[in-house]
Parts: sequence; C-alpha cells; structure tokens
Amino acid sequence: MTQYKIPNATIKRLPLYYRYFQFLDDSNKQKISSNELAQALQIDSATIRRDFSYFGSLGKRGYGYDIKLMLGFFKELLNQDKTANVALVGVGNLGSALLNYNFSQTNNIKIVEAFDKNPKIIGETVHDVPVYDIADVKQHLKEQNIDVVILSVPVKSAQQVTKQLVAADVRGILNFTPLRLSTPDSIRVHNVDLANELQTLIYFLNNYN
Amino acid sequence: MTQYKIPNATIKRLPLYYRYFQFLDDSNKQKISSNELAQALQIDSATIRRDFSYFGSLGKRGYGYDIKLMLGFFKELLNQDKTANVALVGVGNLGSALLNYNFSQTNNIKIVEAFDKNPKIIGETVHDVPVYDIADVKQHLKEQNIDVVILSVPVKSAQQVTKQLVAADVRGILNFTPLRLSTPDSIRVHNVDLANELQTLIYFLNNYN
Repeated sequence: MTQYKIPNATIKRLPLYYRYFQFLDDSNKQKISSNELAQALQIDSATIRRDFSYFGSLGKRGYGYDIKLMLGFFKELLNQDKTANVALVGVGNLGSALLNYNFSQTNNIKIVEAFDKNPKIIGETVHDVPVYDIADVKQHLKEQNIDVVILSVPVKSAQQVTKQLVAADVRGILNFTPLRLSTPDSIRVHNVDLANELQTLIYFLNNYN
Repeated sequence: MTQYKIPNATIKRLPLYYRYFQFLDDSNKQKISSNELAQALQIDSATIRRDFSYFGSLGKRGYGYDIKLMLGFFKELLNQDKTANVALVGVGNLGSALLNYNFSQTNNIKIVEAFDKNPKIIGETVHDVPVYDIADVKQHLKEQNIDVVILSVPVKSAQQVTKQLVAADVRGILNFTPLRLSTPDSIRVHNVDLANELQTLIYFLNNYN
C-alpha cells in the first residue's frame, strides 16, 4: 500500500476511528451515519469524509457507514490482525505502571520484555513481564524481533539510554520522558509527556475562560 | 496576566521549557545559549525565541539565558509554586497505574482522591489515594476544591461518567479513554490515548521509511 500523501493528522486519527468502530461493533450496531460519527468522535464530518477519502470511498450516500466493513478495513490498515510486540525501557514508577496497564484494552499491542540497569530488578518479572539488563538490550530485541520501544527512564539517563537503543537498531521510540531525544533521522520518536498534558490543561484553565 | 494572543502550540511547550530549566538548574548550570537550548529541546531556535517573545524579552543577546531567572519565570507562569490537586475517576488497570505513578517526577501535581463505582474498592486506599463512590463525586470534589479530573474509566461508561463530572462542576478533564467526550463548551477536555500513540507510531514505521 503506498499512502505517501496521507497527512499526519489523518494518520493520528486512524486508531481513533478503528477503536470507535470496534466499540460500535461490540455494541452490535450495524451502521452509523456520517453525522452521528462526527458527533460521537467530536470531529467535524468534513474532516472525517476527507480522512476516509484517502482510502477510497468507504461510505454510501444516504446509508452511512457499514460498521463491520469499516472495522475490517481499519483493522487491516492498522495491522490489527497481528499483535505488535514492543519493549519497555526503564522499570521505575511510570514504567512499572505501564507494564501493569500493558495496553490491556487493545488486544494487539503487548509489552513482552522490559529493560533496566538496576540489579535489584534485573532477572525479575514485573507484572508478568521479564526485566533484562539494559546492557543486553540489543541481543534481546533481536531475539524477539522487536524494533519499537517505550522509553520511561529518568530524564537524566534518557539520552544515554537512547544511544544504546540506536545501537540496538531500534526504529521507533515512544518517549515518556520530558527530554526531547537527539536521534538519527532514521528513528521515529513520538513524545508523550503526562505531566506536561496535565500542566497544559491546568494552565489553560487558570489563564483563559 | 492577560495572554489572550499566545498560540496553543506555545502554551503546550511551556511545561517543556519549565522542566528543562529545572533540569539544568538541578545540574548546577548557570546559563545556556539559544542554540544549545534549541538543540537540547529539538525545537528550532526561531520558534523558541518567538515563544519567549510572548512573555517579554527573556534572554540577553550574546549571553543566552540565565537559568535561575528563566526557571523562576516559568515557575511563576505555570503556578509551580503551589501544588495542583486533581482527582482520578476510574480505578481500573490504567487508573491504578496512574495512581501509582502519581506524577512523582513533578512535585506540583498530585492526585489526592479517586472515584469508582466498584463496591469492592470504594472505601479502600489504592497507592495511598482514597477511593470514593462515584455517586458522591460532587461532594468530595467540592470539599477538596478540585475541578480538574483525570478520566480513566472503560470506554463504555466514559460518556455517562462525564455527565456526572459536568454536574459536579468540573472545569477540566484529562481524558485517557479513546472516546471523544461530549461536554459543554465551558469544560476543557484534553485527550491522551496511550494505545493510539503507540499504534500511530507503529503505523508510521510500517508504512513509511
């Protein structure tokens, strides 16, 4: 599939569409109108239609969207039929919390191994996930064929650990540290900063409205 | 402070600036050049200068930024001198993980109470945070003077619980459910979808590069 012209904003909405159709299907709904969809997702219907148009014509005028069809479509598009195995680096407070969560609401993402430098937890199992020495990260990732890593180390070691991940041929990093990582262009980094999200929300509430 | 013209993108970077200056100060650094800052944050220096310009002239040409001064400035701007108390609703897998995390890397955000509808955990303490009946949410939020809530309930009850939060005069919701909530305009909702972030990252890796 070549989709080089699809905007990033559209791609970021794909999992949302997928999960909403999953939810509708779980609720035994059969179809949904464009307007209902727009209202439920809080995205205006022109945007939804434009998003869907990148993948061909998915709805029927006057009928709306067939939920099973849409679900199947997004499932394939997002490779939801196979589980994506990922690793987590940094089993501290947040890392341990993420291992506990382990994306349990979605059945296609799984953290299968974790890494740390703390000898006290190396060799242990945290929330059913084995913890290995970060020094051996390259070997373990290779064995499990994993190239996507969740980074939840303390900010002070974030860049140093990133170097190790680069050397281990990681392709994607979901960065939970507040540091903006310096990486080669070939590596894709997405930043998630929970404290940042909450601080920003509070800032808006304090300074606007 | 009236800052009605500050772009959202700038506001979203404020906590990042704050935390980086905090990090520099912790490392006993005294000043940083505009270019070093740009490189460390992976934000181009023109953007940083423009961001800072909304708050007046913060750096000195040829000197760079005085870290203590900048830290003090952002601390005040983000109200970091006082702790922001928030509540969490939905003590499931993710909710419990967030209670365990409890923003411990930042010392100014604290989840002080949690809510659920499960009688088995109502009245209990989860990771040092008391769990109350969601039916009593209005009373407890009033008592604690809390109007910002983290929502981590299952997607199926997200909208119903949101109605209860609206009735409890909540002003801000950090929404960890994949559902786009329907709320009055007076309520600010920020969406954080961890599975979405990871799926998007994986989608990019599978379809680009």
